[in-house]
Amino acid sequence: MTRKLIVVGGGAAGMSAASAARRTDERLEITVLESGPFPSYGVCGIPYYLSGVVPDAQSLVSYPAEEFRERRRIDLRLESPVASIDLKGRWLTTESGERLDFDGLVLALGARPIVPRVPGIDHPRVVTVRRLEDAIALRACLGDVRHAVVVGAGYVGLEMAESLCESGIQVTVIDRLPRVMSTLDLEIAEIVEQEVRRNAELILSSPLMAVHARGDELTVETAERSLDTDLVVLALGVQPQTGLVSGQAEMTSAGALIVDSQMSTSVEGVFAAGDCVALQHRVLKAPAYVPLGPAANKTGRVAGTVAAGGLASFGGIVGTAIAKVFGLTVAHTGLTLADAKAAGMKAMATDVTAKSRAKYYPGAEPLRVRLVHTAVGQVLGAQIVGRDGAAQRIDIIAAALHGSMTIDDVASLDLAYAPPYSPVYDPITQAAVAAQVAMEKVGAMEKVGAR
Amino acid sequence: MTRKLIVVGGGAAGMSAASAARRTDERLEITVLESGPFPSYGVCGIPYYLSGVVPDAQSLVSYPAEEFRERRRIDLRLESPVASIDLKGRWLTTESGERLDFDGLVLALGARPIVPRVPGIDHPRVVTVRRLEDAIALRACLGDVRHAVVVGAGYVGLEMAESLCESGIQVTVIDRLPRVMSTLDLEIAEIVEQEVRRNAELILSSPLMAVHARGDELTVETAERSLDTDLVVLALGVQPQTGLVSGQAEMTSAGALIVDSQMSTSVEGVFAAGDCVALQHRVLKAPAYVPLGPAANKTGRVAGTVAAGGLASFGGIVGTAIAKVFGLTVAHTGLTLADAKAAGMKAMATDVTAKSRAKYYPGAEPLRVRLVHTAVGQVLGAQIVGRDGAAQRIDIIAAALHGSMTIDDVASLDLAYAPPYSPVYDPITQAAVAAQVAMEKVGAMEKVGAR
Repeated sequence: MTRKLIVVGGGAAGMSAASAARRTDERLEITVLESGPFPSYGVCGIPYYLSGVVPDAQSLVSYPAEEFRERRRIDLRLESPVASIDLKGRWLTTESGERLDFDGLVLALGARPIVPRVPGIDHPRVVTVRRLEDAIALRACLGDVRHAVVVGAGYVGLEMAESLCESGIQVTVIDRLPRVMSTLDLEIAEIVEQEVRRNAELILSSPLMAVHARGDELTVETAERSLDTDLVVLALGVQPQTGLVSGQAEMTSAGALIVDSQMSTSVEGVFAAGDCVALQHRVLKAPAYVPLGPAANKTGRVAGTVAAGGLASFGGIVGTAIAKVFGLTVAHTGLTLADAKAAGMKAMATDVTAKSRAKYYPGAEPLRVRLVHTAVGQVLGAQIVGRDGAAQRIDIIAAALHGSMTIDDVASLDLAYAPPYSPVYDPITQAAVAAQVAMEKVGAMEKVGAR
Repeated sequence: MTRKLIVVGGGAAGMSAASAARRTDERLEITVLESGPFPSYGVCGIPYYLSGVVPDAQSLVSYPAEEFRERRRIDLRLESPVASIDLKGRWLTTESGERLDFDGLVLALGARPIVPRVPGIDHPRVVTVRRLEDAIALRACLGDVRHAVVVGAGYVGLEMAESLCESGIQVTVIDRLPRVMSTLDLEIAEIVEQEVRRNAELILSSPLMAVHARGDELTVETAERSLDTDLVVLALGVQPQTGLVSGQAEMTSAGALIVDSQMSTSVEGVFAAGDCVALQHRVLKAPAYVPLGPAANKTGRVAGTVAAGGLASFGGIVGTAIAKVFGLTVAHTGLTLADAKAAGMKAMATDVTAKSRAKYYPGAEPLRVRLVHTAVGQVLGAQIVGRDGAAQRIDIIAAALHGSMTIDDVASLDLAYAPPYSPVYDPITQAAVAAQVAMEKVGAMEKVGAR
């Protein structure tokens, strides 16, 4: 008898799981149930589609449905939302009333945007931009928009602000916190804040209270002031979309499914992947909810392989993330100093500002590098902000975190040098050397204090 | 009595050594003897100075002589060549006839360009471009040059070819080998070769036989043909400039000083750094001669610190190097497949061509990534060539080599993703996943073979 695998969710994680399952077992019966009209697409590309940097929506779609259906022999059902799942009973029902049994299940339920419960939030001009179909509808009406309010000054909010500015729209970004990008340490976030202020209006410490509407004319009410606008974009982060299996499998308090390194949930034969799971954080040594694309793809692949009877495991995350915020590249990996302190670690941060290329070479720009490390030199994380050369430099530290390296290890890395690409002491090396000096000073002070 | 430290050579290694010695011991008497007119400058910047990308020579000089003399209290003597050194007797003589005694010595003798012994090689229009004073003289006469022959198709030769092309000069590159860039595997070098041919004439398998001159008109004779030209630039690599201490300290057969991780030579109290030493190669686990800027600076710092009584050590190299060759970035780290085989390792190479950014994002360009690894997955090296995003990606593998990572480790790295900077599976990840697949196939074939 052929085994039946069902994948709930046809995003990056779900389609990776289904494809990996097919590679692992040619005879498996594989069904994917996706609530929306598109299989796996680049969610992170949506801001660039909205601004027109990416001309058409179809180019965000990884593969056409036929590729999955015909070449990979996956029964991909679009616009097929699931109504209920019985994990232990091994069956589910669709909203259209069908009952499907399964031998194995991959939950690739994804995440949904956080929407604050304030008056007026349901107005059609108050939007989120997580689903491609919503983005297509939004782009069609952007021509009428002169002003937009982006609610939330995290990665996605700032990417959306840039995107709308690119479309010639005046943008106001509001956030309830007194700062932007709370995933970064404040000193680094302030550099980003300056860049946002150069390009858009930014109102901090201003939670969204209500949206009032007269037809298409909106007024956004914050704690401090009112803003007339044509469009409100909510970018308050996401939460795991695990309501369907609530109470049936082990989850974090925030509702993210807990999985092992084979992406197995607490229920036998049920796997989970992507933005609905918490993943092992290699620096925190605990599960963390960091819903990003690369891990969605990788965990999908692992879940599908193992669900189909193959061998695979996921190596964990270190929380690496990057965003383009107007002219700046903003990247971080591992723990911020605030994260480390919150986790009870005795941590310190060392900052340098170094040139991205040889100082005499055209295009050299200052890069701010912050290394977060323990007082005895264990590397815990990094934050890098600049106009040139930040992107893959963060990955050097991501690799260092995977390798549990020390500051001395990072200082000794043999990094590539040529004037068009870096100074002779790379910014990463400079930061590590500065951290060595800073730790010596701390050590000397502690010795003085101990007398 | 104040101790006396002499540093022979005022390049990057020598000035790093002298500066580190001063930081370590405020009272040390430090003398630097430099044969040329400039202290430490960016040798690697010379091609960009010659092309005018870097407008003035002074900007290649790291610090003015006064910085060393006044702020760092280093007796920096320019144009002061050394005539002889007695390492065990602890004294040396200068070409001006002075005798200087020392307690400690740092040999930062540097390297000198290899010049083939062929007829006509001494003509003033046959030049090397290692010394800044030579580059200044050359740039002054480039206006008269319509055609130049670059001898040697390695990194420096190709950088010089680009530099001369930028100045509007027609360039022919010749090499005795049937290929360019013998530091790369042939398959990767061929990509570079195509780029060179798009921009300059390239004649391979053509050793330089002679240069004939009638006034300023030169004819370059190769094994196959004769080339009329105005200028010949020799770029055949460098050799350690250790003649002064020949027979007095342990050296490799090629004349590079052998040092330990404190940069101590075989003679007590005598240290060496920079382009005159062989350094421990972390992948080869043997000394290797890879004379590049970052190691010169770092080893100088270690030598100076230890010579002054401080603690420091050098962590070795993995042979990371990068060059801009016209529109291409060409980078490598660790061992090539050829290197690994020459070292007797059972190695294989996995190649992928991946996009540098999300495929739908403007500026995405193909990156060729080659990972060299053992059949059981130990990473040995990488080569990356492309028009976008090669630079710091090589450093991810350099870090992996420092951490003795496996292909599985690299495949699991949590690398930064956003559409402007990388695809969701970074090219490095794609290469590692392809290597996993390739190793599985090899394993399967070996099982079949064993039946």
